[in-house]
Parts: sequence; structure tokens; C-alpha cells
Amino acid sequence: MPSTPSLSRSEAVPGDLPTVDDIRAAAERLKGKAVLTPLLESPALNKRLGGRLLVKAETLQRTGSFKFRGAYNALVQFDQRQRRAGVVTWSSGNHAQGVAAAAELLGIPATIVMPADAPAIKIANTKSYGAEVVLYDRYKEIREEVGGKIARERGATIVAPYDDARVIAGQGTAGLEIAAQAKALGAELDAVIVCCGGGGLTAGCATAIAAESPDTEVFIVEPEGFDDTRRSLIAGERVSNDPGARSICDALLAPTPGVLTFAINRRLVTAGYAVSDVEVRRAMATAFSDLKLVVEPGGAAALTAVLSGKFPIAGKTVAVTASGGNVDRETFAAALAQT
Amino acid sequence: MPSTPSLSRSEAVPGDLPTVDDIRAAAERLKGKAVLTPLLESPALNKRLGGRLLVKAETLQRTGSFKFRGAYNALVQFDQRQRRAGVVTWSSGNHAQGVAAAAELLGIPATIVMPADAPAIKIANTKSYGAEVVLYDRYKEIREEVGGKIARERGATIVAPYDDARVIAGQGTAGLEIAAQAKALGAELDAVIVCCGGGGLTAGCATAIAAESPDTEVFIVEPEGFDDTRRSLIAGERVSNDPGARSICDALLAPTPGVLTFAINRRLVTAGYAVSDVEVRRAMATAFSDLKLVVEPGGAAALTAVLSGKFPIAGKTVAVTASGGNVDRETFAAALAQT
Repeated sequence: MPSTPSLSRSEAVPGDLPTVDDIRAAAERLKGKAVLTPLLESPALNKRLGGRLLVKAETLQRTGSFKFRGAYNALVQFDQRQRRAGVVTWSSGNHAQGVAAAAELLGIPATIVMPADAPAIKIANTKSYGAEVVLYDRYKEIREEVGGKIARERGATIVAPYDDARVIAGQGTAGLEIAAQAKALGAELDAVIVCCGGGGLTAGCATAIAAESPDTEVFIVEPEGFDDTRRSLIAGERVSNDPGARSICDALLAPTPGVLTFAINRRLVTAGYAVSDVEVRRAMATAFSDLKLVVEPGGAAALTAVLSGKFPIAGKTVAVTASGGNVDRETFAAALAQT
Repeated sequence: MPSTPSLSRSEAVPGDLPTVDDIRAAAERLKGKAVLTPLLESPALNKRLGGRLLVKAETLQRTGSFKFRGAYNALVQFDQRQRRAGVVTWSSGNHAQGVAAAAELLGIPATIVMPADAPAIKIANTKSYGAEVVLYDRYKEIREEVGGKIARERGATIVAPYDDARVIAGQGTAGLEIAAQAKALGAELDAVIVCCGGGGLTAGCATAIAAESPDTEVFIVEPEGFDDTRRSLIAGERVSNDPGARSICDALLAPTPGVLTFAINRRLVTAGYAVSDVEVRRAMATAFSDLKLVVEPGGAAALTAVLSGKFPIAGKTVAVTASGGNVDRETFAAALAQT
């Protein structure tokens, strides 16, 4: 079991928490690079739920998840020396693909540290963008150490998957879009529910929503056993997950909230929910039949909270992130077979 | 085997073929009712194909297929008497859902004649919109006769699935969007490839593309054994399919081109292609893995022509319709298992 970062309450929070202006600047940088993903709804599903459910289809984003947003926003700000020396990061797969695709677009060499048990599709896709992939053992090695060593050897720049202000600002562009698209649909959002791993998408979206739609509450959803942010919000400080926990939501297995992300989320997130593997598979099947979306387990977490009834939306208007769609055929077929 | 409509070359073509102005008027009527579906692309897929492939994701349209466009455009033009007496139509499932959903929105009673072997999801969805479903035997009864009898008895108005100028104009709004979205992406379209059953989507899109992007060629794709439009384009007159033909593309089993639709398509469509069930399943699996879209067999026909290499796009920019996503879990799982 890798040691987790210090959880001391007095830990210094860097002064450069991203603001909504940083997110707006990121949106400008991403124009024509990221997909303006649709905010979808199913009238039939709305009828069953008794409320209005808007689904931000980041499954349709470049690289199949929202992660391209933050990665591109970080890499495009590299100076010439940084561009030449390259980028290093670690990721279970979606940030990996985001960084690899952004690096390819910008001509920056990329080295990605990935767990050996990451979904095959995520490893293959990351390599397809020309990145070098270094595998590590999720349960024996510390990815930050593996990546840090490579970065030092090469003089490369680390772009961490969520504890990076530029990454958070990039992810927040999804929140800006949700606010604008909901307005265009005539929807007043009671809540935005975000799938939460390290908390980067949450922190970015919460910052954007606080500015653009201040009466809208933000909630997070995590897999059971990986509800570190939910429990940290209650505890008022960063707590960790049981290292023995397992979940099909491979994108949401961060051991503890990020320092930057938790500094934001503790102020802006109302509460968290945890969902089980069976509930997630059912939600993936509903996304298939009612929304025609391919959603990966971790990307379905927020939707799962609504469909399972844990977050009832009767009489409400609620947006959820469908954060990613990078799922192997076998895992998807198993979800379709879930009863 | 039901008799098909007369194939006489001298058949009168009604004077009211829809124009691009009819399509623009339909687009105004559909604002805020239909989804402005995204035109998606996968840089990884583009790299493999050596060209630029833009996918119009009508799978994300209200009711899960483009058919809502034409149905709503027709029904919203009903006068008060017609609205009270209701609408009757026949459909293998997607037009059924389109009419049922539009009728529910407008408070119009709807009766839909559907083949007893239509996908369960399509029958269930049609009923979920409050429509009355009348089943018939696809291989023994003539759906036009079943529907016509009901319409006469009830004084109801028939909205045929493709041979209706208002329906064609509605479907054409997808073509207007393709032209505008391609322009916004900086893409000059060499070709638009459309999934073709009775030819309504093709006729509407071809009319829109001829006006908005006159240098773009339009092609159609049909299932093997149901390539009546492809062969009719060659013959210069409407020909029929072998009644013994079978295909998994349940949405594309029209026995012969429509009168109105063929009058348009013979002028505006360059040529047609036919694809096999195996090729279609492979394309559905690629849409899953590379585009994160749930595409039904018939909705994948145009994509299949490109992915199978029958329509090579090396060096070209080509848009295809992903026309619908209403597919049973079993059929989809079988596509994912296709090698």
C-alpha cells in the first residue's frame, strides 16, 4: 500500500486556486480543440424520474472523457524549454489519454505512468497518441514516485491529474458549458452532480457554477469504498480510503482528495454520495437504452446516484456529468446483462 | 409477400416536392423541440482512415432517431379538426416513435401500425409516448392497407414514413445542420453519406446539401438485399427488393423507394452502396469504441460503408448520418462480440 500524502489540517494551500476568470481563459484556449459536448435529456427518462435530468455528455469529448480539457489547458501554457523537455504524468487512463492527445497536438513528448491493470482500451489509446507508457503496480508502487523520478531524469514537467490549477481550470470549462447550455434550454438548475475521483472536475465545475449559477448546489458521487471526498467533506479535512477497497469505477480510485481540489470543494460542494458496482452497471444500461450513450463505470457515477434513487430529483432540474466513455467491450456487455 | 406500389415510370410525381425553404421553415418549427445533435469526429479514427470523418449523431435526437424531425414538422401543421381526429402511420419503429412523441407533445391521438417482429425496445418506446400500437405480420399483410383502413374509420390523417413532403422537409433539417456544423469546424465536405430506407432522410438532406454546399456529393447506403434505391438509381426507375431478403437493419427494410423521395434522390444522389450484416456489426462496435455512440444496425449503414472500405475516404472530408440508436441489448452485445 503506497503511503498517501500528508493529511495534516494545517497543510499549506497554494495561493493560486483557479478562479472563474482562469476557467474563462481556458475556454478560449480550448475553442476549436475540445468538443462542445451536448447537454442531453430524455423526455421518457424525465417522465419516469418526475424531474428534469440533463446529462453533460463528456463521453463525446476528444479522447472520450473530460480530461482532455485540463490537459490541453496545462500543456498549451508550456514555454519553449518545457515543450522540448516534455511532459510526465500518471493516470489510470483518462488523464493519460487527455495528456497524450494534447501533447501530440502540440508536438510535446509525453511519458505516462499507468497502472498495469488499467483497462486495455485506455492503455492502447494512450499509446495511439504517440505517448510512452510506463506501467506500475497499483498496489505496490507509488505512481507519484515513479513519475517524479522520470521527470527529474528528463527535466520534464509534471502535469498532475487533478492537483494542478491549470488542469482544474480546464475541467471547469465543462461547468461553464453546463451553465450556459442549461440556460439555453430554459432550465434553472437546482443541482449539478459531478463524478469525483481526485476532485479536479468537481473543483473546476463548482467554481464555474458558483460564478454562473450561484443558486445551484453542487454534489459529488464516488464509488463505495472510494468515498474519500464525501467523508472528507463531513470531517472537514482530507481523509483516505481503505487500501483494500475495490470498484469497477477505475477512473475514480484516487486514494484521497487533492490538496488544491479539496480546498475548493470543501467550500463549494454541498455533500457527497457513494454508489455500488451493481448500481453503476444498471445506470450504464439505462444510459445505453435511454440516452444512447456509452458511459464507462466511473463516468456513470453521478447518473447512478440519480437513477438509484439516492439523489431523488422529483420536481427538480438537475445536471449530471457523464464524464467518460472509455470502457472495454466485456465490461460494457456485463453492464447490459446486469438485472 | 405484399404487393408493392406501382413502379410505372410514368407515375405522376406530385408537384409539391419540398424545397430548401420548406426545410428552413421546418428548422424554425423544430427549434427547442428537436435536439441540435452534434457532428462528431474521432481524431484517432481519422488517422486510421486517412481522411476526416464527421458523424451526425442523430442517435442523440429526441426518440433516439432523426424521425422525430419529420414527424413533428408534419403534425405541428395539422389543423384543429385533424388534431382532434388524430394521426395514423406505419413504421418498423423509428418513425413510430417520432410520430408518437410528436403527437404526445401536441396532444394529438396517435395510432401506429408496427410489424410484430419489430425490436421490443421500439414497440415499448412507442407505447410509452401514449400511442396505440397495432401489430401486423410484415410478411403477410400490407401495412398501408392496415393503416389506411384505420384512418378511414376514424377520420384520422395519415403521415406516411417517407412519402410526405412535410416529413421529408423535417428530415432535411439534419442536412442543414450538417452543412452549418461542417462549416463551423472548418471542414469542406466532399461527400455526405446517408442511411437509406424509404429515402426520406436522403431526400431531405440531399435537398439541403444541394442548396447549402453545392459542391458536396450525396451518397446512400442500404443493407444487402434491400438496395432498392441503389439499383433504382442505376435503372433510372423505381425497382423492388426480393421479398425473401433479410437483414439486421430493421429500420431500412422498405420494399421500394418512395415516389416523392425517388423523384428527389434520382436528381441529387450520386450513387448507392450495400453493406452486409457482419460489416454493420463491426461498424457498431467501432462506433462504441471510437465514438462512444450507441448506433442501431440501420443507423450504422453509412458509417459501415466508410469503415468497411467500400467508400474510401483517404484525403477526403466526409459526413455520415448515424441515424438511430434504438437497439435491443442482445443485438448490441452481439455486435460487440463480432470479430
